[in-house]
Amino acid sequence: MNRTMKVASLLATVSFGALTASQALAAESLQDVMKRRGLNEKDVLAAAKTYTPTGKRDEFVVFSSGGQSGQVIVYGIPSMRILKYIGVFTPEPWQGYGYDDESKKVLSEGGSVDGRAITFGDTHHPAISETNGEYDGQFLFINDKNTPRLAVIDLKDFETKQIVKNPIMQSEHGGAFVSPNTDYIIEASQYAAPLGGEFVPLEEFNDKYRGAVTYWKFNREKGRIDPENSFSVELPPYSQDLSDFGKGPSDGWSFTNSFCSERYVGGIERGRPPFEAGCSAKDTDFLHVLNWKKGEELFKAGKFKKVNGHAVIEMATAVKEGMLYLIPEPKSPHGVDVTPDGKLLTVSGKLDSHVTVFSFEKIQAAIKAGKFTGKDEYGVPIIDMKETIHKQVELGLGPLHTQYDAKPCVAYTSLYVDSMLAKWDFCEGKIIDKVSIHYNIGHLMAMEGDSAKPAGKYVVALNKLAIDRFNPVGPLHPQNHQLIDASNDKMQLLYDMPLPLGEPHYAVAIAADKLKPHVRYPHGTDSRTEEKHPAAVRAGKERIERSPGKVEVFGSVIRSHITPEIIEVTEGDEVTVHLTNLERAQDETHGFAVSKHNVNLSLEPGKTASATFKANKSGVYPYYCTEFCSALHLEMQGYLIVQPAGYKATETKAKEGVTYAKADYDTRVKANIDTQKVIDSVVGYITSVNYKDFAPVVALVEDATDQLNFAAGAKAKSEEFAAKGDYHNAFLWAEQWFQYQVKTADIGLRAKTFLEQNGAKKVK
Amino acid sequence: MNRTMKVASLLATVSFGALTASQALAAESLQDVMKRRGLNEKDVLAAAKTYTPTGKRDEFVVFSSGGQSGQVIVYGIPSMRILKYIGVFTPEPWQGYGYDDESKKVLSEGGSVDGRAITFGDTHHPAISETNGEYDGQFLFINDKNTPRLAVIDLKDFETKQIVKNPIMQSEHGGAFVSPNTDYIIEASQYAAPLGGEFVPLEEFNDKYRGAVTYWKFNREKGRIDPENSFSVELPPYSQDLSDFGKGPSDGWSFTNSFCSERYVGGIERGRPPFEAGCSAKDTDFLHVLNWKKGEELFKAGKFKKVNGHAVIEMATAVKEGMLYLIPEPKSPHGVDVTPDGKLLTVSGKLDSHVTVFSFEKIQAAIKAGKFTGKDEYGVPIIDMKETIHKQVELGLGPLHTQYDAKPCVAYTSLYVDSMLAKWDFCEGKIIDKVSIHYNIGHLMAMEGDSAKPAGKYVVALNKLAIDRFNPVGPLHPQNHQLIDASNDKMQLLYDMPLPLGEPHYAVAIAADKLKPHVRYPHGTDSRTEEKHPAAVRAGKERIERSPGKVEVFGSVIRSHITPEIIEVTEGDEVTVHLTNLERAQDETHGFAVSKHNVNLSLEPGKTASATFKANKSGVYPYYCTEFCSALHLEMQGYLIVQPAGYKATETKAKEGVTYAKADYDTRVKANIDTQKVIDSVVGYITSVNYKDFAPVVALVEDATDQLNFAAGAKAKSEEFAAKGDYHNAFLWAEQWFQYQVKTADIGLRAKTFLEQNGAKKVK
Repeated sequence: MNRTMKVASLLATVSFGALTASQALAAESLQDVMKRRGLNEKDVLAAAKTYTPTGKRDEFVVFSSGGQSGQVIVYGIPSMRILKYIGVFTPEPWQGYGYDDESKKVLSEGGSVDGRAITFGDTHHPAISETNGEYDGQFLFINDKNTPRLAVIDLKDFETKQIVKNPIMQSEHGGAFVSPNTDYIIEASQYAAPLGGEFVPLEEFNDKYRGAVTYWKFNREKGRIDPENSFSVELPPYSQDLSDFGKGPSDGWSFTNSFCSERYVGGIERGRPPFEAGCSAKDTDFLHVLNWKKGEELFKAGKFKKVNGHAVIEMATAVKEGMLYLIPEPKSPHGVDVTPDGKLLTVSGKLDSHVTVFSFEKIQAAIKAGKFTGKDEYGVPIIDMKETIHKQVELGLGPLHTQYDAKPCVAYTSLYVDSMLAKWDFCEGKIIDKVSIHYNIGHLMAMEGDSAKPAGKYVVALNKLAIDRFNPVGPLHPQNHQLIDASNDKMQLLYDMPLPLGEPHYAVAIAADKLKPHVRYPHGTDSRTEEKHPAAVRAGKERIERSPGKVEVFGSVIRSHITPEIIEVTEGDEVTVHLTNLERAQDETHGFAVSKHNVNLSLEPGKTASATFKANKSGVYPYYCTEFCSALHLEMQGYLIVQPAGYKATETKAKEGVTYAKADYDTRVKANIDTQKVIDSVVGYITSVNYKDFAPVVALVEDATDQLNFAAGAKAKSEEFAAKGDYHNAFLWAEQWFQYQVKTADIGLRAKTFLEQNGAKKVK
Repeated sequence: MNRTMKVASLLATVSFGALTASQALAAESLQDVMKRRGLNEKDVLAAAKTYTPTGKRDEFVVFSSGGQSGQVIVYGIPSMRILKYIGVFTPEPWQGYGYDDESKKVLSEGGSVDGRAITFGDTHHPAISETNGEYDGQFLFINDKNTPRLAVIDLKDFETKQIVKNPIMQSEHGGAFVSPNTDYIIEASQYAAPLGGEFVPLEEFNDKYRGAVTYWKFNREKGRIDPENSFSVELPPYSQDLSDFGKGPSDGWSFTNSFCSERYVGGIERGRPPFEAGCSAKDTDFLHVLNWKKGEELFKAGKFKKVNGHAVIEMATAVKEGMLYLIPEPKSPHGVDVTPDGKLLTVSGKLDSHVTVFSFEKIQAAIKAGKFTGKDEYGVPIIDMKETIHKQVELGLGPLHTQYDAKPCVAYTSLYVDSMLAKWDFCEGKIIDKVSIHYNIGHLMAMEGDSAKPAGKYVVALNKLAIDRFNPVGPLHPQNHQLIDASNDKMQLLYDMPLPLGEPHYAVAIAADKLKPHVRYPHGTDSRTEEKHPAAVRAGKERIERSPGKVEVFGSVIRSHITPEIIEVTEGDEVTVHLTNLERAQDETHGFAVSKHNVNLSLEPGKTASATFKANKSGVYPYYCTEFCSALHLEMQGYLIVQPAGYKATETKAKEGVTYAKADYDTRVKANIDTQKVIDSVVGYITSVNYKDFAPVVALVEDATDQLNFAAGAKAKSEEFAAKGDYHNAFLWAEQWFQYQVKTADIGLRAKTFLEQNGAKKVK
């Protein structure tokens, strides 16, 4: 069959496809399937509540920490399908993250500590940017517990833009949480250490080790944290834990709880009882109550000391200025969670069976009245716990974390030891429902459930053990996130979702329609700076620049070739390859990998990225596009030729594998002209219907038009060579002309299928 | 509430949980849900065919390449839930892969090339080990296209055990595929280069660049590749592509196809038409037909040359000995797939619309008859294509890869350009059905569909573009694997599954019941060597060894402490921490991370792993367990104290944060005794029913018994201190005794809940 006929079969195939869709008859009834698979009616209901047919969208998008994978996990609700892992603290080659020069800069600015390269993080608590306490879908922040850091992810493209290192902590936990307008992001320390990181013997723990909270200033316009305008507050060496910002009436305040306020130092190896024995002996720990707006004033007034160049408000100052208080709280809590209206805060004592609801109004009243039971060893006033309690509710064993429902007064709390999730009324202090989960739930997540306007409907249990829930995959198990229908008082377990990589700690869910990410970058964008890349090129402007010991390539990628296709360098050269993806089509990502050189770029449409490497050994190194971007993706290749030092090329002309003559050219051209007729007929169909009413088709038509313009360019070159009588090259360019035609037809076919399957109508 | 009462509430809570389960009434009917979510009956049927309720298992387990993520992705069918990412060529901290010393060794042996550390791979084709051509579920192999390598994963624990570097290739593609008894694993080159990696100018491409296939010898008993007994065969500089082994009648032979047999070298930057133009100009490429059993004989007879120390059978030898032939095949194929009975092989010409079915019998007849149309430029005999064809079937545009059904004569082929999947009869050469996919399918996967005994039922389309299928997550889209019900002639699209990390190329699916991975390691196992770790310790035998400039810690982890809890070293020391997880309970993994030192271990039950790092800056660095392993996981902490050089400790005794007296001790002991009564009542319940009939409960009882023994140990220490009148330490050890009681109760509760929910019966 000649190639024209093959392209002609496009049309026949489309019809067949349309037929098949309508013929997809069920061989089994629903009852048959239920019987075969052992499903009951509740299962089918759960299936119907979660199953999301092809092309349909999820209602909510979740950003989950990836734990010690160092990444963020993005998934949809109710389908519970994972949509993306975002590289944050750990290099990830598929995204080119930590492999291209641009992201290496982000990672090394945030990942170089005392001369050590830190290549992972222990991500804990993601936070979505807020406006007036409501999620706005613009930015995501996440912290690293192990090497105290905070990362900024832009939700325009789901890429990490900035990592800031905490200048005073050796360990952290209680971040990221944002103030109601995302002016500040909080990060609280965990295990106490000398602020600034110097050596102090453990014997001086009580005197010289400290905790802290850092308020990172966020510049929303720039989309970056502004370290110069950020400050910290020194805290006692209790192990600070989770934090939250006040909102509404409590705006201007933040809350951080703690465990091991016993300040016990273990040492089981020297006969001392371990940390776990001494850190959970008292019945209460301390909730830290901070007036951060006052802190901002003190910072602006210069009332701080500098530690490692960073502003730290000393405890004595904080106490004197009335910005720091303590309240006893149930022992070893893991979660302080301000209610949507900002009036109450819930603290779960993990080793208690109660959830304690504090009243912000009562806290303020106690402060105003100076009603303190005393001061701690560090001079911080202690508010009388009894004076501040709204309710204490016995929910079960191991209460841990609370989020809120759309319905007023309704909260959800995880119960770690009970392996249950409780729905309860925090106004009245009574349990509404409890549901068993599998197993040992840590955090939970309600929809926008820590914002000023929770969305209700679902809640997810972030379970720490999966044990027997899934097919076995060896001693290391996946985690288990369980989706629960919470739209009624009675909750229903809907879905078990294994997490295949990482140990998520916390997650946040946003209404999907609040996210409006780009599908492409403006031509030549450095995605990390979000500015025009200085090495971006337009088609035809690719070039190689050489200087002693350095080769710099300004290249491009487009279906289906990399320009340049041959890069010759000398052994020992430092080589930088900048590549711009010239595509405009959605999802037309190209990759770029160089044999044995640890080079891998991910080039989404419009992006420019760079790889710098040392060509330290002479040889021949193929490079290629790593994405299956078109039928000819395997032919999207090239060679890095590393010549030995001092190598002089001889003027050998390469022998062609195959040579072509006029007859080949004529046949090729005739076939191309026939192919063009087929393309015209597809174009004829598309323009005969209301294709402009279908945004995806408009994009495809744009893409097809690009390809057809390229075809015209190759045709012109072909004719130029033919005019000179060089039929070998004329034939090859005619082949290239045909390749662009095939791409045009491919896209046209996709557009035609879409129109047929989505009820396009004839226009006159 | 005192603690005894809290533990007592265990019992109350269980009943509540049981009630809740039975009360989970549906507030919405199935019809309500369908209307609300816009589902039709076909959708609900698809939902019922894929939804897998909590605790139920998938029928098949898939191993998918992770593309340039360098990993392997494991997911279940029909639920399409991702169960695990396995670190293979890329470090992955959650698994400790590339972070612990043991896996660093695996990675560096396979990832150090010419002084460059290679930290990613472009994984392409996974293969499961076979016995008599059928999947046996013992091992998984996967190749790296970019830095030619092959990895061995043991399916006992889903860990990478070995990576071997190909000694002669600069680029590869056509691996891993196994011989019917896994004697050999094949790896075929892709882009031609001088064998051995030396520099040769591109002008000499035709003369000096070469392709090759490597037959890696696999030692099944050791579970490792044996490079000494592996060999390669030199091939012409066609771009070799996919491979397959013969089986049954074709056992002893292997097949490798190719593209760009034009041997065209592009150079668009110098005015030459690009590779894509010149590499797809001819109507046919070459299928390589190799007699590998003959090759094994030649290798054993020493008829090879050594290249980089590796045995390479030269083309001339291969031709002379009758082990290498070529057959023209449809242009630019991507898949040569031997039928389950080994009699036929299917080749898809990606730029043709046909699938060509070759007959192995006819190929042999042509070889025996010496029926060659000639030789290629390298002297390799070319078999007449016409003589060897069983059928040519026009399936559609862009046919790419074929796998087989359980039903004889039935095959599935992906159609890239058409975005369809075809089901067809390769005996009769006719189409059975076609289904549209979304979009641009590369490989496809039928269940055990490339083995001698395919399992049918499902087929998965591995699509290269997702475009509009999922909620948008920025310019870089997930991939889309679509599950198709193939149990009837008419296929039904069931499920769209986004792949959130990596660009899978190929996947293999095995019946889940063939996999029997371990849930724990024997005590003190080095999981990479699968031998007893020399640094493994038993409880109580932990120690620290010191020599000049070196500190070596032999420690342990168990709920909820790390032994040792304090590690003191001197600035500049090299520190190695070996940790053994003493747990036996399933899923009781502990982690170990050290602040700012890039140390992260994953310690599954029984595993011993090590971290070596330089303590290059004095300071105080908390370390902790990164897994939420128990209610007291945050207390599972310690301190690495890096003292300045020359530091001399003064004999300061640390001040305790809180001190305890006899009254505290007495209260504590009383509470513990009451707690023991509650535990006894739980034990009483468990032993009153047929708990031994429930394997998970037997494991929990074992675990609880361990914890109770630890409780006894702490109790003894507590009493020892009390006898000496040291009530401070007596109290703390009594606290530790209580902590073990809480763990016992936690486990007991889980066992009790399980028994109640799974219909345990009273025994006399």
